[in-house]
Amino acid sequence: MGKTNEYQPDRRKFLAGMGMVGAATIAAPALKAVAAESSTVWAEEHEIVIIGSGFAGLAAAIEARNLGAKDVVVYDKMPYFGGNSTYNGGLFAVPASPLQKKEGVQDSPETMTADQLKAGRGVADKDLLLHVAKHAEEALRMTLDAGSEYFPYLQQLGGHSVPRTYQTTSASGAGIVQPLVQQCKKLGVQMVTRAKFDHLIHDEEGRVIGVQILKGHYFGRDTEGSPVNIKAKRGVLIATGGFARNVGLRQAQDPTLTAEVPSTNPPSATGEALLELFKAGAIPVHMAYIQTGPWASPDEDGFGYVSNYSIYNFAHSISVFTRTGKRFMNEIADRKTRSDAQLACRDDAGNPLPPITITSYKHAKEHPTMKKVLKYGVGWKFDTVEELAAHFKVPIEPLKAQIEEYNGYVKSGVDEQFGKPMEKAKGKYIEAPFVVIRNWPKVHYCQGGAKVDVLARVISSDNWKPIPGLYAAGEVTGGMHGVSRLGSCSIPDCMVMGMTAARSMMKA
Amino acid sequence: MGKTNEYQPDRRKFLAGMGMVGAATIAAPALKAVAAESSTVWAEEHEIVIIGSGFAGLAAAIEARNLGAKDVVVYDKMPYFGGNSTYNGGLFAVPASPLQKKEGVQDSPETMTADQLKAGRGVADKDLLLHVAKHAEEALRMTLDAGSEYFPYLQQLGGHSVPRTYQTTSASGAGIVQPLVQQCKKLGVQMVTRAKFDHLIHDEEGRVIGVQILKGHYFGRDTEGSPVNIKAKRGVLIATGGFARNVGLRQAQDPTLTAEVPSTNPPSATGEALLELFKAGAIPVHMAYIQTGPWASPDEDGFGYVSNYSIYNFAHSISVFTRTGKRFMNEIADRKTRSDAQLACRDDAGNPLPPITITSYKHAKEHPTMKKVLKYGVGWKFDTVEELAAHFKVPIEPLKAQIEEYNGYVKSGVDEQFGKPMEKAKGKYIEAPFVVIRNWPKVHYCQGGAKVDVLARVISSDNWKPIPGLYAAGEVTGGMHGVSRLGSCSIPDCMVMGMTAARSMMKA
Repeated sequence: MGKTNEYQPDRRKFLAGMGMVGAATIAAPALKAVAAESSTVWAEEHEIVIIGSGFAGLAAAIEARNLGAKDVVVYDKMPYFGGNSTYNGGLFAVPASPLQKKEGVQDSPETMTADQLKAGRGVADKDLLLHVAKHAEEALRMTLDAGSEYFPYLQQLGGHSVPRTYQTTSASGAGIVQPLVQQCKKLGVQMVTRAKFDHLIHDEEGRVIGVQILKGHYFGRDTEGSPVNIKAKRGVLIATGGFARNVGLRQAQDPTLTAEVPSTNPPSATGEALLELFKAGAIPVHMAYIQTGPWASPDEDGFGYVSNYSIYNFAHSISVFTRTGKRFMNEIADRKTRSDAQLACRDDAGNPLPPITITSYKHAKEHPTMKKVLKYGVGWKFDTVEELAAHFKVPIEPLKAQIEEYNGYVKSGVDEQFGKPMEKAKGKYIEAPFVVIRNWPKVHYCQGGAKVDVLARVISSDNWKPIPGLYAAGEVTGGMHGVSRLGSCSIPDCMVMGMTAARSMMKA
Repeated sequence: MGKTNEYQPDRRKFLAGMGMVGAATIAAPALKAVAAESSTVWAEEHEIVIIGSGFAGLAAAIEARNLGAKDVVVYDKMPYFGGNSTYNGGLFAVPASPLQKKEGVQDSPETMTADQLKAGRGVADKDLLLHVAKHAEEALRMTLDAGSEYFPYLQQLGGHSVPRTYQTTSASGAGIVQPLVQQCKKLGVQMVTRAKFDHLIHDEEGRVIGVQILKGHYFGRDTEGSPVNIKAKRGVLIATGGFARNVGLRQAQDPTLTAEVPSTNPPSATGEALLELFKAGAIPVHMAYIQTGPWASPDEDGFGYVSNYSIYNFAHSISVFTRTGKRFMNEIADRKTRSDAQLACRDDAGNPLPPITITSYKHAKEHPTMKKVLKYGVGWKFDTVEELAAHFKVPIEPLKAQIEEYNGYVKSGVDEQFGKPMEKAKGKYIEAPFVVIRNWPKVHYCQGGAKVDVLARVISSDNWKPIPGLYAAGEVTGGMHGVSRLGSCSIPDCMVMGMTAARSMMKA
């Protein structure tokens, strides 16, 4: 990160030397608002300005106050706080955690980073991953201090070599967002909704000295809001999340992600602040890597109930292609591997034929999501394998043979079909009665975004150095996870990089 | 392309309605140089301003003059014209071409597009590909009119379903660049070297009305040049190529593409104009898809002699992993498939062990590159398979068996190992004496860049509409080819989109 780029001379310095800074025709954004500091009418001034109130923005606000910042403000364009973080499943990977010590699980930041690099398919950013893994437990502690509650056991999610994932008792990111928002308010952080970031304001030297906010913004309506200029003494943090719901931008990267493809994200995940970062000279990284979630269901909107249900149950379940009655993937492979395998489940005409995931009722009921899945009709209970097969039109004999074969793997501890790690399946045979849900991927997460360094500083394409006064954290940044992010690694990423941005701003 | 994005309201329109346009703190680049038209000191004014003198820039200049433009200028930052196009192999795919008719090959723009979509792995832009394929023959004619000469036969390159590729008799893009440069001069196009594009100049409405050029630029030295403002009456075309030699930018996308990884491109392929486009609100597409060439050699710098030699010979050769003596890929699969297969050829410690490509001398000598490959010591001739095996430390018996097995496929017309299309291998058995070269991938082409529509207009992230006055063509644009571009499809892309930009400017 932040390596010197021999082919990118420092243009700003050069032009300043030429006496060109200040001329009206200089068009580099870092130079454009040249009269800003002297002529701008500032409506407000704050020590630290944070855009976005998800995990990253809230963690940054709390950390800044803890480090002694007197005046911290958080803006969100929506009428409520939390953004996509509230829609998140509340899964939080922490290496070498207290629960791992209790459960006797050997783990380390290096091991977690190695798992993530593998899912990243060779192009993830090791420095960023290791930085987050090393500070994940601090972030967990921040949520506990704020009042978050977690289940007293760990889960082993797809692509993780060991169980290391906490989950909030609400099985939702809201179980972290709500306590953090309360903590912010308790600490005197100013929290403003319906305040949409419009653009950055630079000074003569190219430093980011503030933002223009549209106050009274109504998302999705014609009311953009009233522009006011907000001065930032220490810095501006952009923590505005991804662009899963910006159909044009995601389709520019992948034409198959049309408006008809559903997403787990709320409609507000549109990424316009990211596009503003590119205008300010931020470097676009991995924009083409857009993740779909293999645990989602075609039978409900958004993240829904099935996602958390599947994430918990995959380890001791079998996913079956209904045409063959056979398994077609390692149920806890990384997300991209599983999404690709699911997307290949089609009828003769090429139409989607969502595969089913079969779990023994006695194991499914250990997680609170099962009740909701059955209650809302997005999962079904069957007393016999015959009923199950008839309902989903699965050939019965291959299905019976598959279940018997898989139960052999449960016994032996070795999955000879797909190499699934069987630790969490120990003793958990597939037996009637069954609970069954259907899976089909949804657009879930944008690996791409603006390039930052391990201090959460936004790197400039002009000179390959940080843009002074500008920070970014969370899904709006790109490069950390590579081609595919592992599940439960977004919360540590957002929280740690938000905290990191606060630390950087307080030191700058 | 250019689809309306429901989540990207037209900000410029909105802010203008608010009476905000013109305020010093408006930071959207399209709005920033608000005083430009009135206060800018213009050194020159031209009807059409073209940045870059590769295939795209030159084709645009000629087409603009042909359509009646009176005043066309082409700027290049280097002391010579042609950029990376001169280093190109001179391979030019044209569907339904005169040579195909002569050779009796059935082909169509739709067939070529289908091949390209397959190599693009589902994310290529069908509209752009089809537009280029439909106009490829016009582009070929432009080069013939200018005096380019081609071999009188077609080649079938990796990933193409039929032979459709012309090649200049110089086996180099110079065979197109030089005639086009002469044609430009003959037509009165103003051609300026050592003139580096620095940034765009916008008017009050956000229209691109000119550029700032650094005249007297010396690439790679401290002399940046003197800034002059050039007004463009009809429009500005950015045709500056890719960023294969910008180590920072390529490594941000793929950390393995360190400074140590060689490239076929000249040092000037650094992409700074692309980064300027992003500042102007252009949408980054597929920046992470960087292509390495599987026909390159570790025994020479740059594109070298082996690249064209391999491209011509792969169809009737076998590539062999020296540790096993066996083939390891379809020698005419698409570039990504082959590069990935070659990169997997390693010793026990994981160090590269470049595979060898074996061709019968009698077939290799049909192409003029063989003489150069042998003369410069980057290829070797062997009279017996024993000598060959001893030289490269290949186990002899498996190698002999492999050659015999492959010759069976030549006879049967079906490659049972890797499904290679055998049409061009008909009757071409692998027999002594042999010519052998080594292959290892080099960074060759950037699929990513700025989003354009089929009229070569640059799309704005502000409102998902074209940025008035701004055009882009060639490797600086992104999205057309998806994950992997097929060989010989860059020349038609560059030439057709350059011509298209000229047509759009003359109509605008």
